[in-house]
Parts: sequence; C-alpha cells; structure tokens
Amino acid sequence: MKLNDTFTHDFLYSQKDVEDFARVTGDNNPVHINAEYAATTMFKVPIMHGMLGAALFSKILGTLFPGEGTIYLGQNIQFLKPMYAGKTYQAVLTVKEINLEKNRAVIETKIIDPETQKATTVGEANVMNVNVIK
Amino acid sequence: MKLNDTFTHDFLYSQKDVEDFARVTGDNNPVHINAEYAATTMFKVPIMHGMLGAALFSKILGTLFPGEGTIYLGQNIQFLKPMYAGKTYQAVLTVKEINLEKNRAVIETKIIDPETQKATTVGEANVMNVNVIK
Repeated sequence: MKLNDTFTHDFLYSQKDVEDFARVTGDNNPVHINAEYAATTMFKVPIMHGMLGAALFSKILGTLFPGEGTIYLGQNIQFLKPMYAGKTYQAVLTVKEINLEKNRAVIETKIIDPETQKATTVGEANVMNVNVIK
Repeated sequence: MKLNDTFTHDFLYSQKDVEDFARVTGDNNPVHINAEYAATTMFKVPIMHGMLGAALFSKILGTLFPGEGTIYLGQNIQFLKPMYAGKTYQAVLTVKEINLEKNRAVIETKIIDPETQKATTVGEANVMNVNVIK
C-alpha cells in the first residue's frame, strides 16, 4: 500500500438489504422502507440509509483494502446525494497519507454513481494496520 | 429543539445483530464474527463493527431526535474504544449549532460506556429537518 494507491469496488444493495439494515440498526425511518411515505417526500421514492453506503467503507477497509488487521480509527462522511436500492454504485478509495511509524493511513473514501460519474458520498477514513501498511 | 438540548438512548446489540450486520454490509472481518480469530488479536474477544455503533446515530436522528423529516447531511466519527455485543451502551446527542434559515443543525454524537462513563465513539452529525428545527 503506497501513496495514491486506488481501490474501486462496485456494489448494489437490494431493498431487502435496506430492510435488514433497518431491522438490525433500528433505523426504521419510513423514507427508507415505505414507498407510500417516500412518495410524499422530496425524494419521491425510498432512499437507502446513508450509513448503509458508509458501511461499505468498513467492509472494504476491513476485508479488501488494506484488509485483514485493519483497525478503523475514524471516518468523516458527507452524504451529498440520495442513493437507491437496486442500483449499482462504485466505491473509490485512495491512499492520501501514510504514517509508517504509527502504521496509520488516511484514505479518501468516495461513492460514485457510475451513470453520472458524480459522487453521492465523500469523506476520509483513518485506519491503522500492522499487517499491511508496514 | 434548541441549543444544548440533549437526548440519551440506551442500546445493546446482540451477537446475532453483529452477524446480520456483517451479512448485510458484506463486512465479514473475522474480528467481529469469529471468536477463535478474535482471540489471536489485540482485542481477545469479538468486537462490534464501529459502523454498527454509528448506525445508532442514524436511527436516533431519523426516528427520535429530531426524528421524522431529518435529512442526514454528514457525520464525523472517531472510534476510540472497541465495543462489544451483549453490553449496554448509551448514545448521547447534544445540539451544538442551529441554523434556522437553512433548517440545519450540528449535533454532537457520543457513545458512552455506562460502567466507565468513558466515550467509546465521538463525533458530530450535520442534519437538516424542515419539520422540527423550524
């Protein structure tokens, strides 16, 4: 893992995933799980939990890039645009800073809509990993 | 909702919740779901996904405080200490800034271990809510 390394990962959550996420976390906000309610909002259709998108960063950092041994120290997230179940998005992670002494890295974390190439979510992760970074 | 208003919410995730979260998000990092593997790490026992704790903020902001109509604009999170399934924690949210013109608020988001009174997770949420803040 070195500066400016980039990792991309396509993903799609189903509406069933959104419902499961709502059940596990207790976040039953109807804008995510009730199409009739969502129709009355500015979103018109159900939107994914922003945190379900952000959970992808946890998956990638912990299992793929850098992977096993990662300790998640922090995450900044801006939810820029609504995201929808059943649609493919792309997570793009880029190494922005490496501190070899402390085994730490700062990784830019974005989610892109492949159709528009616009970011739906941007932010930065702080991670530590003794296995991989060193 | 006014400046310095505080909302507290006790919660507990079961190991089944952690497993469901792992399945839904794809974050199968064994430190969360495999006790034998966890025993080989600095944590010794399985730890919760930090993002599962953070998902609590999504639940609270979207359904309880301020509740319905909340649009989640952003979240900063620092994962300070590991958290464990089967243990009760307390989320503490405090209103730090209100912008009535834009219907926006900045809310401090903490998770406290009630036994030690120490924070396991700290951060800030940015939210918009046309129903409640105005």
